[in-house]
Amino acid sequence: MIYLDNFAVGQVSRYGRYLVTREEVLAFATAYDPQPFHLDDAAAAANPIFGRLSASGWHSCAMTMRMTVDHWRTLGGASLGSPGIEQLSFVAPVYPGDVLTVENEVLSLRPLASRPDRGVVHSRTRTLNQHGEPILQFLAATFWPRRQPG
Amino acid sequence: MIYLDNFAVGQVSRYGRYLVTREEVLAFATAYDPQPFHLDDAAAAANPIFGRLSASGWHSCAMTMRMTVDHWRTLGGASLGSPGIEQLSFVAPVYPGDVLTVENEVLSLRPLASRPDRGVVHSRTRTLNQHGEPILQFLAATFWPRRQPG
Repeated sequence: MIYLDNFAVGQVSRYGRYLVTREEVLAFATAYDPQPFHLDDAAAAANPIFGRLSASGWHSCAMTMRMTVDHWRTLGGASLGSPGIEQLSFVAPVYPGDVLTVENEVLSLRPLASRPDRGVVHSRTRTLNQHGEPILQFLAATFWPRRQPG
Repeated sequence: MIYLDNFAVGQVSRYGRYLVTREEVLAFATAYDPQPFHLDDAAAAANPIFGRLSASGWHSCAMTMRMTVDHWRTLGGASLGSPGIEQLSFVAPVYPGDVLTVENEVLSLRPLASRPDRGVVHSRTRTLNQHGEPILQFLAATFWPRRQPG
């Protein structure tokens, strides 16, 4: 298990190595974000922002989540879920062939007054490409059990 | 094409009908959010928040995007992309068998000073289940071309 007690303000974790394939970009976009610039090379080239075929922003979130869940599994557990996300920013396009990694910093944590068996951690997640450039950033709240309920 | 000029502050659009299947919940979670409560009935029953197998919050975002893109297609176009999302809130669990719809309200819009060929629309998206209960809410910024660049 991972407990609220395992987190500390200022803690920075770096994890993940996710190769973005063209096949996966097309499959995700076909299912969930079938805008032409996520599906078609010519349409992407005509888009003034993307320039070439790029992943859906929601796909970048999903890939970031997968790396995060895999990281939690190496620590022996999973969260209790999340109430939400703030300041989600699609900083730069994600292209097929990119290799993504994640950097997470704990900003604050506290027990929940309403539920003494759990607490909430607020953290900043940045997802970077192989050039070290951020492509995605957000602040997440995540629920965790407490080792000793207050 | 859909242009910035096609939006108006206060405009409300309701669209979409997305049946959430157990197979899709499991497939998305397996790929992107393999936490036990998104994959396994017993683990979900033990989770104090979910109670039973539920969709990843990122999956709810993705399904909402699909309904939104389909709506834009009925209007004849697509956006130019999005810089980001604010106040993304996973309001209630999404369960297999749920049927989702979307309600979108335009909050503000403006041409971009830096790019006279486009503008940005800020809107509130609420995704509802078949009981009319919100399951997801967020504020999105979306770029659109201008019919007559300023």
